[in-house]
Amino acid sequence: MKTAILSVGTELLFGQITNTNTVYLSQQLNLLGFDVMYHYTVGDNPERVAEMIRLAFKDCDLVLTTGGLGPTQDDLTKEVACRVLGDELVMMDDVLEDLTAYFRKNGRQMTDNNKKQAIMPSRAKVFRNDAGTAPGFALQKDGKYIVCMPGPPREMTRMFQKNVVPFLRKMSDDVIYYRMIRCFGIGESQLETALLDLIDNQTDPTLATYAKEGECSLRIASKRGTQEEAKAAVDEMLAKVREIIGDYIYSCDDEDLVQVVCRKLMEKKLTVASAESCTGGMFAAALTDVPGISGSFQRGLVTYSNEAKMDELGVRAETLEKYGAVSEETALEMVEGLKAVSGCDVCISVTGVAGPGGGSPEKPVGLVYIGLICGERKLCKRVQMRNVSRKWNRHYAVLSMLDLINKNI
Amino acid sequence: MKTAILSVGTELLFGQITNTNTVYLSQQLNLLGFDVMYHYTVGDNPERVAEMIRLAFKDCDLVLTTGGLGPTQDDLTKEVACRVLGDELVMMDDVLEDLTAYFRKNGRQMTDNNKKQAIMPSRAKVFRNDAGTAPGFALQKDGKYIVCMPGPPREMTRMFQKNVVPFLRKMSDDVIYYRMIRCFGIGESQLETALLDLIDNQTDPTLATYAKEGECSLRIASKRGTQEEAKAAVDEMLAKVREIIGDYIYSCDDEDLVQVVCRKLMEKKLTVASAESCTGGMFAAALTDVPGISGSFQRGLVTYSNEAKMDELGVRAETLEKYGAVSEETALEMVEGLKAVSGCDVCISVTGVAGPGGGSPEKPVGLVYIGLICGERKLCKRVQMRNVSRKWNRHYAVLSMLDLINKNI
Repeated sequence: MKTAILSVGTELLFGQITNTNTVYLSQQLNLLGFDVMYHYTVGDNPERVAEMIRLAFKDCDLVLTTGGLGPTQDDLTKEVACRVLGDELVMMDDVLEDLTAYFRKNGRQMTDNNKKQAIMPSRAKVFRNDAGTAPGFALQKDGKYIVCMPGPPREMTRMFQKNVVPFLRKMSDDVIYYRMIRCFGIGESQLETALLDLIDNQTDPTLATYAKEGECSLRIASKRGTQEEAKAAVDEMLAKVREIIGDYIYSCDDEDLVQVVCRKLMEKKLTVASAESCTGGMFAAALTDVPGISGSFQRGLVTYSNEAKMDELGVRAETLEKYGAVSEETALEMVEGLKAVSGCDVCISVTGVAGPGGGSPEKPVGLVYIGLICGERKLCKRVQMRNVSRKWNRHYAVLSMLDLINKNI
Repeated sequence: MKTAILSVGTELLFGQITNTNTVYLSQQLNLLGFDVMYHYTVGDNPERVAEMIRLAFKDCDLVLTTGGLGPTQDDLTKEVACRVLGDELVMMDDVLEDLTAYFRKNGRQMTDNNKKQAIMPSRAKVFRNDAGTAPGFALQKDGKYIVCMPGPPREMTRMFQKNVVPFLRKMSDDVIYYRMIRCFGIGESQLETALLDLIDNQTDPTLATYAKEGECSLRIASKRGTQEEAKAAVDEMLAKVREIIGDYIYSCDDEDLVQVVCRKLMEKKLTVASAESCTGGMFAAALTDVPGISGSFQRGLVTYSNEAKMDELGVRAETLEKYGAVSEETALEMVEGLKAVSGCDVCISVTGVAGPGGGSPEKPVGLVYIGLICGERKLCKRVQMRNVSRKWNRHYAVLSMLDLINKNI
């Protein structure tokens, strides 16, 4: 069923808040098999809200709105929905009782404009609000449905899960199943080129590529009569995709690279330590972002100055002098020193030129060396990045470190 | 000028990414004096993109689009904009040269679909993309303007600031001048309450508060005939604001706290080192994000395990045993140890409970101790955070560390 999401609220147009409701509803509706075709946002203006609902119904059979259900004067979604779907507002006694009970329970005074919230479209199916005062509702006319929910994310998500999902399930026939395939080391256009035959001949499952800071993703989705059929179709396509770009895939379940690496470290009960120069602690920060990693991650040394590299890791002055801080030799002495002080199973080092300054013809900005000791294995990988920006170089260096660990444990 | 923002991308309709472009552009356009009336999002479908642009032009004179400018088949914003505004696509030699140079510089192979990115509407004003391959452009017909930018936020924001803002400034008559006042240690509703008299009686300059992860901002804006008049009005209001909330202000020029701290460290030529437990390297990563900080930042120790705290910093086993890793005593021994090994002018340590697990009635999740040695001064600050999430706790702990340094150097 073709669906539109309409967000009502002037604060959104001012950019004062990020519209998280829309991303949440889009995910949920897609999972339920609805085709989200449009997102609209308008301010608290009855004409524009009405115009948007009418517009949405031109192409869609279902419109979900958030916002504009509160007790104040500028809350007008209810009145507008009534007008567009030809209904009238009536006081609903059971809703008023509910509201009165809510205020009593929370020890709050009920004002006249709160009572206004019990006025509902006469044909509406009302949805209770467990986390606030504004009830939601669904209204139908000639096969066109509108579902109106409050704007605060906590109220909206609760109402959606508890009341709206059961309502919507009755409306949809098909089931959508999809997997997000995550890749590192291949660009979006390379990925598309590699999969061109599969993408061009797609009907179901469909394939779509997405670029994400330094990595890219592939979405394989199928819409079938049952979950089983859709799942089987997706998995069959995934097998074909694997044959072509399997080397670049690090997750088939939309896990981040850091999550994959941390999960493996924890499962294998491996300890890990890091010695960073150009990334300045970002690798350690990324790992320690994952709850439960304290069993694996022991210590991280941010040896930014040459003195710190010598002091903390025993890098030799001659090495720094002869080969420079950004060199295979330094990266290897860093990781060897780290192994000696930490004794961890997995030790990783990185040194590079993050930019914007500090580059040279031999060692341009974006060049990094990553040292790794993993069990018996010791290696150093040279990565020349595209040098988009200091931020990007550092980010991509961390991804490269995670990728190197992922491929070696 | 009435303005609409159109986001193009099926991934947005799937809810795979949050639309941060729209919130960014809404803020920026409002600051420039444009009235944002609508946000629209559609998938990569030429008919629907065209329909939305036509719809937007009914009520608005300016439409900004993001997305759909990439090299792949489903990138079609350019073609659609051309159709709607009656222009044709031509290969632009200077754009092709730019692109070729970009690929050469980055050592990447240029594919045929990349060349397609040099094809532009013949009447377009082209905007260079400093952070990627897809150029943007502006196109006009009968007083209706469209500005098309790439979708990746990093590319879009750079292009917007560098090329689109100067273009838009020429379109507006009044001059808007504003300052963003950045505060730490005060919540948004506290801030609003403190400034209520000033906010309620505002006509020009206007005051608006914004909440931002762990901090809040105040925008003082004035719209006048000349830049000088607007600036004088804003600065006069700023003086009043300072009298009320001066203690919480760390920047009047929208600088991040980390930028303020790094600028001061560099100006004063102070060296700095960090010893982190719960923040796991985030403090070091934040500092080293600032170009040129290598003269000040010497080293960071991420002593996550107790062994690391003892090994690297000489924290005593008895201290850890008696007071626990999260304690004033441990924070102080960490920073004392750091001073001994690094000799830096400013030494800072942090230990706390980031959560979600690991809390206790005495030491709940969100409790951190921050140790600081700064010249002759040595102190420890206890911060009990609201415990929103692990991510938030770690983020807020880093802000608290920066704030402590800012107030003591």
